[in-house]
Amino acid sequence: MTRRILVSILVLLFGSVCRLRAATEYDAWLRYEPIEDQSVKALYERLPAVVVTLDDSPVVSAAAGELLRGVRGMLGRTLRVEAKVPAEDSIVLGTVESVKRAAPELAAAGGLIADGFWLKAAAFNGHRILIVAGQNERGVLYGVFALLRKLGLHARIDPLDDVENPYAPVRWVNQWDNLDGSIERGYAGRSIFFENDNVVADLTRAGDYARLLASVGIDGCTVNNVNANARMLAPDFVPQLAKIADAFRPWGVRLSIAVDFASPKTMGGLDTFDPLDARVAAWWRAKADEIYRAIPDFGGFVLKADSEGRVGPSVYGRTHADAANVLAQALQPHGGILIYRGFVYNHHMDWRDLKNDRARAAYDNFQPLDGKFAANAAVQIKYGPIDFQAREPVSPLLGALEHTNKTLELQITQEYTGQQRHLCYLVPMWKQILDFNLGVNGGDTPVKEIVSGRTFHRGLGGLVGVANVGADPSWLGDDLAMANLYGFGRLAWAPDLSAQQITEEWTRLTFGHDARVVDTVMNLQLESWRVYEGYTGPLGLGTLTDILHGHYGPGIETAERNGWGQWIRADHNGIGMDRTAATGTGYIGQYAAPVAAMYESLERCPDNLLLFMHHVPYTYELHAGKTVIQYIYDSHYDAAVEAQQFPEWWKTLRGRVDEPRYEAVVALLEYQAGHAIVWRDAICSWFLRMSGISDAQGRAGHFPNRTEAEAMQLSGYAVESVTPWEDASGGEAVACRSAKSCSAQFVFEGAAGWYDLNVQYFDVNTGAAGFKVYVGAQQVDQWKADARLPATAANGDSATRHRITGVALRAKDVIRIEGIPDGGDAAALDYVEIERQ
Amino acid sequence: MTRRILVSILVLLFGSVCRLRAATEYDAWLRYEPIEDQSVKALYERLPAVVVTLDDSPVVSAAAGELLRGVRGMLGRTLRVEAKVPAEDSIVLGTVESVKRAAPELAAAGGLIADGFWLKAAAFNGHRILIVAGQNERGVLYGVFALLRKLGLHARIDPLDDVENPYAPVRWVNQWDNLDGSIERGYAGRSIFFENDNVVADLTRAGDYARLLASVGIDGCTVNNVNANARMLAPDFVPQLAKIADAFRPWGVRLSIAVDFASPKTMGGLDTFDPLDARVAAWWRAKADEIYRAIPDFGGFVLKADSEGRVGPSVYGRTHADAANVLAQALQPHGGILIYRGFVYNHHMDWRDLKNDRARAAYDNFQPLDGKFAANAAVQIKYGPIDFQAREPVSPLLGALEHTNKTLELQITQEYTGQQRHLCYLVPMWKQILDFNLGVNGGDTPVKEIVSGRTFHRGLGGLVGVANVGADPSWLGDDLAMANLYGFGRLAWAPDLSAQQITEEWTRLTFGHDARVVDTVMNLQLESWRVYEGYTGPLGLGTLTDILHGHYGPGIETAERNGWGQWIRADHNGIGMDRTAATGTGYIGQYAAPVAAMYESLERCPDNLLLFMHHVPYTYELHAGKTVIQYIYDSHYDAAVEAQQFPEWWKTLRGRVDEPRYEAVVALLEYQAGHAIVWRDAICSWFLRMSGISDAQGRAGHFPNRTEAEAMQLSGYAVESVTPWEDASGGEAVACRSAKSCSAQFVFEGAAGWYDLNVQYFDVNTGAAGFKVYVGAQQVDQWKADARLPATAANGDSATRHRITGVALRAKDVIRIEGIPDGGDAAALDYVEIERQ
Repeated sequence: MTRRILVSILVLLFGSVCRLRAATEYDAWLRYEPIEDQSVKALYERLPAVVVTLDDSPVVSAAAGELLRGVRGMLGRTLRVEAKVPAEDSIVLGTVESVKRAAPELAAAGGLIADGFWLKAAAFNGHRILIVAGQNERGVLYGVFALLRKLGLHARIDPLDDVENPYAPVRWVNQWDNLDGSIERGYAGRSIFFENDNVVADLTRAGDYARLLASVGIDGCTVNNVNANARMLAPDFVPQLAKIADAFRPWGVRLSIAVDFASPKTMGGLDTFDPLDARVAAWWRAKADEIYRAIPDFGGFVLKADSEGRVGPSVYGRTHADAANVLAQALQPHGGILIYRGFVYNHHMDWRDLKNDRARAAYDNFQPLDGKFAANAAVQIKYGPIDFQAREPVSPLLGALEHTNKTLELQITQEYTGQQRHLCYLVPMWKQILDFNLGVNGGDTPVKEIVSGRTFHRGLGGLVGVANVGADPSWLGDDLAMANLYGFGRLAWAPDLSAQQITEEWTRLTFGHDARVVDTVMNLQLESWRVYEGYTGPLGLGTLTDILHGHYGPGIETAERNGWGQWIRADHNGIGMDRTAATGTGYIGQYAAPVAAMYESLERCPDNLLLFMHHVPYTYELHAGKTVIQYIYDSHYDAAVEAQQFPEWWKTLRGRVDEPRYEAVVALLEYQAGHAIVWRDAICSWFLRMSGISDAQGRAGHFPNRTEAEAMQLSGYAVESVTPWEDASGGEAVACRSAKSCSAQFVFEGAAGWYDLNVQYFDVNTGAAGFKVYVGAQQVDQWKADARLPATAANGDSATRHRITGVALRAKDVIRIEGIPDGGDAAALDYVEIERQ
Repeated sequence: MTRRILVSILVLLFGSVCRLRAATEYDAWLRYEPIEDQSVKALYERLPAVVVTLDDSPVVSAAAGELLRGVRGMLGRTLRVEAKVPAEDSIVLGTVESVKRAAPELAAAGGLIADGFWLKAAAFNGHRILIVAGQNERGVLYGVFALLRKLGLHARIDPLDDVENPYAPVRWVNQWDNLDGSIERGYAGRSIFFENDNVVADLTRAGDYARLLASVGIDGCTVNNVNANARMLAPDFVPQLAKIADAFRPWGVRLSIAVDFASPKTMGGLDTFDPLDARVAAWWRAKADEIYRAIPDFGGFVLKADSEGRVGPSVYGRTHADAANVLAQALQPHGGILIYRGFVYNHHMDWRDLKNDRARAAYDNFQPLDGKFAANAAVQIKYGPIDFQAREPVSPLLGALEHTNKTLELQITQEYTGQQRHLCYLVPMWKQILDFNLGVNGGDTPVKEIVSGRTFHRGLGGLVGVANVGADPSWLGDDLAMANLYGFGRLAWAPDLSAQQITEEWTRLTFGHDARVVDTVMNLQLESWRVYEGYTGPLGLGTLTDILHGHYGPGIETAERNGWGQWIRADHNGIGMDRTAATGTGYIGQYAAPVAAMYESLERCPDNLLLFMHHVPYTYELHAGKTVIQYIYDSHYDAAVEAQQFPEWWKTLRGRVDEPRYEAVVALLEYQAGHAIVWRDAICSWFLRMSGISDAQGRAGHFPNRTEAEAMQLSGYAVESVTPWEDASGGEAVACRSAKSCSAQFVFEGAAGWYDLNVQYFDVNTGAAGFKVYVGAQQVDQWKADARLPATAANGDSATRHRITGVALRAKDVIRIEGIPDGGDAAALDYVEIERQ
């Protein structure tokens, strides 16, 4: 073995051991916990002591290093690394080619494609060998991760004869990192790639991220925001990008970047960026050549153009295909690809025209261009026609580009699904999308087959996940959210895996094999999307969040009456977008006949997309056997109840999960439980007022155990209106703006007993107000409003519930909340709700 | 309730909650883990919601605060604090006096003495009340801790009618803290009381320490080294001491200090410190008055005089009693006590005189003074006649002072018992001491009864533990060592408790109720002293450590041929001190007849003290059925094997103990396992050479799997002798003193297989050398020699074993150790031992 490989392995091996102990969450699913169970350990007793690396490359070295690290972690044994097959049992790592050269008598597996691998336990010269053969070097690395996953899952490795190939060639993540170090729609700290308009000096985390990605088969990472900074292509920046590529390379992850379409003009000094201008094409070619000199394995460009204010080919009357192809042609000689984002729509659409429909936009823009895109270009299509909502129908454009490569864009970062502060595990949603049969040409054409390129025999295709990991030790800001990153990778590699299987793999690798832990974590994950949808936007309404700002808390009306086109068309009588071909926007007509027929029909349209497809009165009776309005009430109340159970389930794992992760997850699930009630109340109050139809169960609008802050005896606090009104109970709150400390008190009138006090307040990010709660003279709790929420004002983003459990109350007790403002945080208070234990 | 009490409670309650999550080890046995088991929770379902504090004092406030904290932690409920008994169920905290005043109809328990308490579930005006009544305020606090301990142990609290009184009035700890912030014989960081000749500004830890002490009934703390700095009595220092007393006060812990006997001269400006000089007596009286003005509850003085270089009454030809009484009389008007250390001996004793015997000293010095000490003075007597060895007979002085108050000095800090780097749980030893029947006047006079004052009807007496906690988050430097602090307090309060019961209490409170955790931790603790004694100094030889310096690693000959008098009298024929009355030093004659008869007789003297009492040939046959020399070999080999099991037992708790504590304890137990082998080899090699008698089992002096560093192929490394010779294998090591990096290599000649490599090196505290281990070209491990050991040279203190498990070796493999020196650490290497897995 060459010295270079040895050094790589050592860095991998010893560089990581110290960290292993320090930060469990940093290691995510690659923890390689020691196997203590003797019966499990016995399964691996005869694992060969020698690992042979037949190829001298960074990727195969990384594979060998990872195998050493994993075996050392799980079995406490240090394998020997050799460059030749020895006269003893051994594990052989190499490409199929190298294995054939080293041992021609070993029958290689047939049918391997790029990145695929073969795991085989065989006999050779009287010795047992365990072959990890890759169709290419990346396949060797993937084979090692697959072998280690078997150990981590306590699976048998003898006999062994597994062949695995990736389902699709493109398995990328996108990072929406800005060069200033911020991350658009990132919820886990600063960028691990950029700061102050430069690449960071220490790229350890970039390498560790690539390792995580490689472990689930992801082979590409676009490191910057699709709203791209022109500086990405600056001559002094390319060498910096090369350093990221160096960190990625051992893990087989190719670097790609998003580019600004105007670069030939802004960066290149041309007077145009017209894609059909020869000078522009030459500039792109020269730029691609320059990049490939620095980064020979560069993946390609991602382009967002003519979308949400980005310039594009329309400036010169050119098409998206013209734009895509000029870049694609520059990349083509080097094997790079161009990914063109299909997220193009008019965000100044006239909302008064009932025929207008943003959902139509992707299809309307791209379907006419089918067949015009270069062979090394792909159109990247979000899973739904709107924008990563908690529920959308599959984008009809996916079925409408028979002669164009496509990638499916999923979102790992939970932009509209709770931003990692709410547990919302998306693999079940993604499975529904991937398995959805678009019925193109009357055939059986599930989305996964279409986007992989199989259906229409395209050479390029696959899955792209917007990940947006950050510098938080847990990568995504929440240990449980890492299941989305894991699940994305697994589905990109093998979309036929069940959600159940992926979840179980992730859970066991992340938290170990304690049966109660495995059951509880899997239940939490698998129920979470349904529950989140239930207390946010059911029936296909979209998430019902504030679409103009944070995309986080409830903000129903932000969808309506503006040019962004996420209309839900709610009035006093009914609700829903009529997207039928018969009477509506015609959107449904973009689907192939079988799907269109289903959605067009009120009878056959599933409840969970009804209001996406149809406008109906609130009294319309659903398949579920209740009216639309009652369904809205029931869904929010039922799901909020379920969300209250999440922290309780988790708490049964105390002592079974290491304390730092245990505590971090408790805090998040308790926050989520409180915010679920904010959601429930906002949506139900709004619909109660809009529809004028009361909740048959008498809940909406009635809060018998709640005392509004504005009804309390105030000292220093002043009443303020909250916008939107439904984000505060009663539409109002009290704020402390002109005193060092304010208080609000009221008299408890209930019977003596043990109670939980829920204090509802607004936690803005412009300061950290303090709160103290007294019963009579006795302080029973205090806390700081110092959560990192995307909110500068009292609204559904900042509304937060603090629960004080087990307080003994007596009739006539005076309950007093003291608020101590800090900076711009006025210690705003909404209400106190008292529940009997 | 007054505002002051409320503030105290709030500080206690909220000041601690944040820390609770951060540092499990800091909370020690006061973790108040939430009770999740519903059947256990049900036991406390009817716990009253109100706590009434009948007394307005810092101690009762602290009791109420602690009750709130504990109930909130374990049951998630916040009790209400009231000043009057309400018309509902309640918990009533108060002195017996106050309870009687508030509810005369409640029959108070009889028989309470100072600090005692009564826990009673009773009916009162139709309500259930839970009474926590103390004979005094401290008793209330102790009652609350006892009640919370019941909850923590998941015990029933209804019905409840417990009366507990302390076994003895003195239950103190000593801290040997120096004013510069160092701690003599402290193994857990810097002082929590002093730095730079002043009291530290932040006394939070002093208060938290007092809380820990109070929770096990300790009521006094002497905060400075018995080798006292005269500055303790400086006028500007008394107000600083008052701040420590303020931090102690809510917890009922009285501050006391050790003083320098020469203070009247050095500090007071007199020309004498003669205890019989009236000016000296006046000076001490005035000083005591001054202290009591600042600290009304000051506990008293501790005095070490005429001992180990300290000045004393002998300067003026006065007696220890004279010295004690002048201080005692100064303290007497204020209720303070004087504790006079009985640890007085001549450390320039002629070793050539076989009749000389340091063990006689305490008796010889103090017995003649019996009856001469003031009523508020006590002589503090170490448990054995030497100095905190792993095994000693009970000090005969304990039985010889019928007319003098006594306190028994135990040592929590493990000066001679592994210094918290070795697990050595001392409660079983202390139990043997406390239960030992001295047979005074032919009666049944166990040590616990004598030192409590019961036997001879003394008004003063009890237990003093030298604790030496430091600024380490774990207080003693090792989470498991905290069981010694807990156990000391419990025994001082109730010496009839069994070691089993104390250990189980501590384990459950510290690590929870997981059955495997409880069993394993209890086994570790309860076996540890026996094992430690087994691989250090068995048969009553003392610890056999280096008594001249660190008191840590093996250093047999330091005991011999010097004036310190810890002689073991080993020569080529035999070993042991002849302390018989018949032919020896006469020490045994200091015991009462029944005990003396037992020790005097070779037949009846127990094996474990044989060599303390008798000189015998190596071939003498023990009751154990083997010769002395073979017993020495067997004991060391057997105990070292057991020590190897300690980390393995602990590792079965992975995932059942929180990770930081798990990891910290693994590291310590692995270190101990290695150091046990250092001990085994040093002692066995020394005795093999001294006796010339080989080990019947062929182990001593034979190391078939060991390759000495001095026999390896060296590059840069040079051979050096190690002193004492027995602390290095073969008496030699190699050191790297003139190169940036050195290496030592050898060829492995064994058969192919999985092996563990044990690398034996010397880790001195003058730098942190690096080590790397290679098999062929492959690095298999690396580490830094950065442990905090009391060693500046290669010897038994610094000898350290690093184990590399699971290395695949083949015949003719070259094994190479690379040492990278750092500062004064020359990366010294002793040997490599290779064991087949």
